[in-house]
Amino acid sequence: MRVFTRAGVVKLQRKKSGMERQELEQRFRHNLLQHCGISCGQRLLVAVSGGSDSVALLRLLHRCIRPLGLQLVVAHLDHGLRPASGADAVFVARLAAGLGWPAVFGFASVAQQAQQQRLGLEEAGRQARYDFLYQQAHRLGCAAILLGHQQEDQAETLMLRLLRGTAVSGLAAMAWRSGLLARPLLDCGRDELLSFLALESQDYVTDASNAELCFSRNRLRHQLWPQLQQEHPGLSRRLAQLAQRVAVEEDYWQQQLQPLLLQLEPLSEGFRLSLERLRPLHPALRARLLREVLRWLRGDVQGLAAGHYAQLETLVQAADFQGVCCLPRAVVVRTRTALEFLRRLPVPEQDVEECAIPGPGRYPLPGGWLEINQVPATAAADDRCRIYLSSQDLRWPLQLRSARPGDRLAPLGMEGHKRLKDLFVEWRLERQQRWQTPLLCQQERVLWVVGYRRSRLLLPQPHEQWVWRVDFQAVAPKSR
Amino acid sequence: MRVFTRAGVVKLQRKKSGMERQELEQRFRHNLLQHCGISCGQRLLVAVSGGSDSVALLRLLHRCIRPLGLQLVVAHLDHGLRPASGADAVFVARLAAGLGWPAVFGFASVAQQAQQQRLGLEEAGRQARYDFLYQQAHRLGCAAILLGHQQEDQAETLMLRLLRGTAVSGLAAMAWRSGLLARPLLDCGRDELLSFLALESQDYVTDASNAELCFSRNRLRHQLWPQLQQEHPGLSRRLAQLAQRVAVEEDYWQQQLQPLLLQLEPLSEGFRLSLERLRPLHPALRARLLREVLRWLRGDVQGLAAGHYAQLETLVQAADFQGVCCLPRAVVVRTRTALEFLRRLPVPEQDVEECAIPGPGRYPLPGGWLEINQVPATAAADDRCRIYLSSQDLRWPLQLRSARPGDRLAPLGMEGHKRLKDLFVEWRLERQQRWQTPLLCQQERVLWVVGYRRSRLLLPQPHEQWVWRVDFQAVAPKSR
Repeated sequence: MRVFTRAGVVKLQRKKSGMERQELEQRFRHNLLQHCGISCGQRLLVAVSGGSDSVALLRLLHRCIRPLGLQLVVAHLDHGLRPASGADAVFVARLAAGLGWPAVFGFASVAQQAQQQRLGLEEAGRQARYDFLYQQAHRLGCAAILLGHQQEDQAETLMLRLLRGTAVSGLAAMAWRSGLLARPLLDCGRDELLSFLALESQDYVTDASNAELCFSRNRLRHQLWPQLQQEHPGLSRRLAQLAQRVAVEEDYWQQQLQPLLLQLEPLSEGFRLSLERLRPLHPALRARLLREVLRWLRGDVQGLAAGHYAQLETLVQAADFQGVCCLPRAVVVRTRTALEFLRRLPVPEQDVEECAIPGPGRYPLPGGWLEINQVPATAAADDRCRIYLSSQDLRWPLQLRSARPGDRLAPLGMEGHKRLKDLFVEWRLERQQRWQTPLLCQQERVLWVVGYRRSRLLLPQPHEQWVWRVDFQAVAPKSR
Repeated sequence: MRVFTRAGVVKLQRKKSGMERQELEQRFRHNLLQHCGISCGQRLLVAVSGGSDSVALLRLLHRCIRPLGLQLVVAHLDHGLRPASGADAVFVARLAAGLGWPAVFGFASVAQQAQQQRLGLEEAGRQARYDFLYQQAHRLGCAAILLGHQQEDQAETLMLRLLRGTAVSGLAAMAWRSGLLARPLLDCGRDELLSFLALESQDYVTDASNAELCFSRNRLRHQLWPQLQQEHPGLSRRLAQLAQRVAVEEDYWQQQLQPLLLQLEPLSEGFRLSLERLRPLHPALRARLLREVLRWLRGDVQGLAAGHYAQLETLVQAADFQGVCCLPRAVVVRTRTALEFLRRLPVPEQDVEECAIPGPGRYPLPGGWLEINQVPATAAADDRCRIYLSSQDLRWPLQLRSARPGDRLAPLGMEGHKRLKDLFVEWRLERQQRWQTPLLCQQERVLWVVGYRRSRLLLPQPHEQWVWRVDFQAVAPKSR
């Protein structure tokens, strides 16, 4: 048996760490050039919070500058959330000066912004940070903003999206490069980075950003993740690899969708897609296409769930049918030969005639029908074409009429009242269209601007077994 | 305010539950016909453990028999794992008799089978159960075997696969229909099934199968899942929907792969795929294709990780290169114009000449090179072409030679010794090939049958900082 002396062991450890550092540097350089699209000689903005990840990012970049001829600018935003946050800025300033790189600093009172914009601390901090980084990158002519997200962050993002609900594409988590943002550490483990820092004898700030994390991310990181990691060693690495595979496959899907998206016909307020083109597609490709069209129309796909896509699929498959499917922030009209994706309900050309609604039933409206039924209380949310009213507080008859001067709404999700006139302006309804928009009222108080927004009045109570469901069923405009 | 009497509330609840039951039945029938491919008039084997899910399955089927004209046979396997398991069988027998359906019963001593076949209780139980069900379905001429897996099981399967490591396709979790097996409850929540059973006044057995669950599934189900569900309501539903979307997209991928798989040229021991066809493919499609070819070759893709596919990608991209990539249970040979997927290393046509290995370095072998280096200890596993040896116990020189009569190996992962002669028979090596297979030995004891199996000798110890890495680098046969 060979016996190692203490000095021998230390020497061996050092040699081993040296090899690991070399491997890490090689991988980092590969990521930078191949995945993040950084070219030799570029000026880069490096976001440094002072935590281990971002400090490791800066030191790794610093070791690459000579072969790649990069110019670095260090950027740090003080979130003003902890008393010690000023010390973090001082730490980053010293670090940047020690390495000989210029640094830019900003201050944002995130707590105040969060309150003003009614956002969580995490979201407000994120917004302030990215605003600052984009601004500085623009001002300094930087080709990219480098971020210190690593393997654990990537795995955490994937898991959090999975828990909150996501389509397949959401599992790609964070991209190596998206716009100006570049993340060259996505395949580096936290341990790897920590031992790199130890070898460089480089300090860092602890708990630099944890205070900004939201409850569920914090619980995931500090309670759930250690448990899961222990039971399934290598979990972060595997999840990060899965995210990478999904990202490559997402690129393939985009390639498949491109020729189909070119077939979209533009309308004044949306797009038309013929059924002839939609129907022969594989269901997977069709679902992706519908999703992409809705993304074009709305700017994002938030709030669209599996149920909404199932409704659209029904609309596509129905043999001889004309109707409307109301989605959050979008309306899809099925005509005889196509689907039309619109931002809002097509407004009918008749004014609303005032009438009383004596009880449940089906009532004609310009552009469709209003149907009221008693149904079991559900957790289902209201949408633009369906609301639920308390069965306990509703008093028949209700009224259906168009807007009158002085009408006000107590919009659900807000405090106080808003004048309907102001809301119409906000929704960009033209004067003519305002008279054509039906209001559902109880004793002169507006319950629902049909197709737009409901009031806080007559919300179902948690203990109610039964509620009134009010549906607006639009009819496809005839002229199409 | 309207006041409900007690009787009124109960009546309303009943009406509500009645509507929910109707909705559940409609959905179940849709799943049965559309997703599970069941046709009217078929005879079906229903697996009933006696737990709530399978009892609900049977009762739901029973309500469908008249419109669909189905014939049911109830099947129950007693796993013999709990003293009370006999009572479960009695319960199922009474249930089937009460509904008027024939029932078949089996008994398996799962604990004994698990011990004999060195399997976990869960796996052994699963095997015994499916063996029994297939056997009975075949004997009774049943068109399908119906299983009670529901939404929570589906979500759990997805999550467990994610934790243990999976490719994208693994996220499809369980299929509505695969072969004879059909799962019509995959989109039904457990609560929904329980209230259906309550409404039918139907008892069921509790804890019918939990005893068979493995540790990590049990922990997931009883500790993790309730936490996650509480924090993210609707989690099971969303995960089950994700699985469904992935399943539809997997079908699309299969459709894309079909024409490519037709271009495979069969070889005597595998397949050839030309680089001309491989290189223009999108990386996502290429990765899927390579995976599919390996599945054809090996029968499954177990043990293949992201790193293996990265190696193959390098093999495809290398400009002018000929070499071999050793994977678990497969070998991929890169020739000038193609990849060849083989079940085993091509055996060179020279015998091994006996030689001594005085220390680390690179040594020629028939069909390639043996390279020995000192490297930092890693968690990396041995494979067919690379092993790690303890630096503490290794004594130079080692020997390289071909097999001699009486040679024995102490195979890693087994107790005791095996005669090399028997192993060669097991590996289906012909007499001539046996003399061409190199053995790495230390003082006459076989350390490694190169390219096949290593012994338990000289395993690296956990405390070792450095180990010897022995690589076999095969060279592509010249005649190709």
